[in-house]
Amino acid sequence: MLEINNYIKNQADIVSNRLNELLSSNLKCIVSDAMIYSVSNGGKRIRPFLTMEFARVLGGDISSAIDFGCAVEMIHTYSLIHDDLPCMDNDSIRRGKPSCHIAFGEDNALLAGDALLTEAFKVIANVKNVKSGNIIRAVKELSNSAGINGMVGGQVLDLQFEKSKPTVDEVIEMYSLKTGELLKVSSILGCLTSDNCDENIIKIATEFSKKIGLAFQIVDDILDVVGDEKTLGKPVGSDDKNDKNTFVKFYGLEKSKEIVEKLTSEAIDLLDKLNGNTETLKQFALYMAQRTF
Amino acid sequence: MLEINNYIKNQADIVSNRLNELLSSNLKCIVSDAMIYSVSNGGKRIRPFLTMEFARVLGGDISSAIDFGCAVEMIHTYSLIHDDLPCMDNDSIRRGKPSCHIAFGEDNALLAGDALLTEAFKVIANVKNVKSGNIIRAVKELSNSAGINGMVGGQVLDLQFEKSKPTVDEVIEMYSLKTGELLKVSSILGCLTSDNCDENIIKIATEFSKKIGLAFQIVDDILDVVGDEKTLGKPVGSDDKNDKNTFVKFYGLEKSKEIVEKLTSEAIDLLDKLNGNTETLKQFALYMAQRTF
Repeated sequence: MLEINNYIKNQADIVSNRLNELLSSNLKCIVSDAMIYSVSNGGKRIRPFLTMEFARVLGGDISSAIDFGCAVEMIHTYSLIHDDLPCMDNDSIRRGKPSCHIAFGEDNALLAGDALLTEAFKVIANVKNVKSGNIIRAVKELSNSAGINGMVGGQVLDLQFEKSKPTVDEVIEMYSLKTGELLKVSSILGCLTSDNCDENIIKIATEFSKKIGLAFQIVDDILDVVGDEKTLGKPVGSDDKNDKNTFVKFYGLEKSKEIVEKLTSEAIDLLDKLNGNTETLKQFALYMAQRTF
Repeated sequence: MLEINNYIKNQADIVSNRLNELLSSNLKCIVSDAMIYSVSNGGKRIRPFLTMEFARVLGGDISSAIDFGCAVEMIHTYSLIHDDLPCMDNDSIRRGKPSCHIAFGEDNALLAGDALLTEAFKVIANVKNVKSGNIIRAVKELSNSAGINGMVGGQVLDLQFEKSKPTVDEVIEMYSLKTGELLKVSSILGCLTSDNCDENIIKIATEFSKKIGLAFQIVDDILDVVGDEKTLGKPVGSDDKNDKNTFVKFYGLEKSKEIVEKLTSEAIDLLDKLNGNTETLKQFALYMAQRTF
């Protein structure tokens, strides 16, 4: 596990540097400072990791994959900034630092989120070594996964479920939109950096990501019960306190852990259908299932 | 003037119908309702008008131009929704109707803005009869004009100028980003629907739009002094009340009107450099300068 840990850390550094480079060329102002502040949050960059790793497996262009990954990370970051706003979750701490609206004011945080979302598409369109059809496909996939039929739709369901009692299937649907879609599109964008990408490859990447995405969210629920606040960087027990309908509530701890293992093992098996060395992706799937952060 | 009035109204109806069609296919939920509510505001659709008209002049594909225009209108609408939020201008009325956050709640309004911005890029990427290179260029132009180096940057300057005393050049810079960039990209997107589009054409469309964009904003300042509340659909005198640094404050009414006339006439002259019938675009420039709404 140590080796994959280091490798992930190393890839995260590459992404962080590139994010900084991409955002530093913009108009200097308080909102561009807020954008850089929010992307520089020491995240694990698991979304760009998927993009870069699928590109590697398929022989795609790595520098393009880094940029595609940065675009997804910008979208992920914008969603966290807007999620933290007083009219949403009203969170004043994000990864141990003041959240964007605490550090820069609500108006600037709103605009920083808007600008990061917009910037993501600029980054995609400016990628050089990917064929035109695949760039257009990347814009389609990213806008679909991030928008009302994807991540935003998941946030809408999440807001709704605060007032209703969802079934387990409804919770799975919410997870798959809110978290799963962005993990899915991270993998697809990696595939699209390769000229050899076809619909069958996209389908395998989609299925793989759906499985690790759901596992990721269930691990989140488990960690909210058994996790360590310091390692997590956020308080535990909040789901229970907020009466959230989590996987652990529906199935209990043991059964939830079993489901994570099953999803992870199915995801790993899917990778054998790809031509290319998928060893690192397999390690990554295991790492995600066993994470404690 | 009556003829161009009717023509603009007719084009606006085409855009409104298409916007409704594009947004109705999405996931049904309160946020997609909020998106449709906000785009159905009876606006004049002057941005899509520019897109469609430049496409016509250059022999571009009209159905693609309608979609490109709808994308810009979605971005314009998202910016109004977010501008109206309590942490920004805190406006509860927009075009005589409750603004989005009053009608749907702040959280849903925030998400509706986010989703409209995202949807705009989906619409661009799904356009059929435009060559790939031009679609990618359209994404580049739109993301640049809407983001931190464009419209959002203009909003940042606007927020800053509430606390400082900007010079007239700084006010022009703010106008050119906040309003000008979206008018500019509307025209450029129209040009990009044509296979004959080249850098020289884009340059002319850019210069034309910059001039009518600045004129548009100066007319706004003038109408805030001499306009009729009913025709405008918003209160007059608010710039003076808020001690805003407008063109009228710097130059007075008469000189401001002269500048509008000069900019409009220069914009019209630029159109003679294009091959194609630019009569309607010229009429439109005059209409914009003489508007009372």
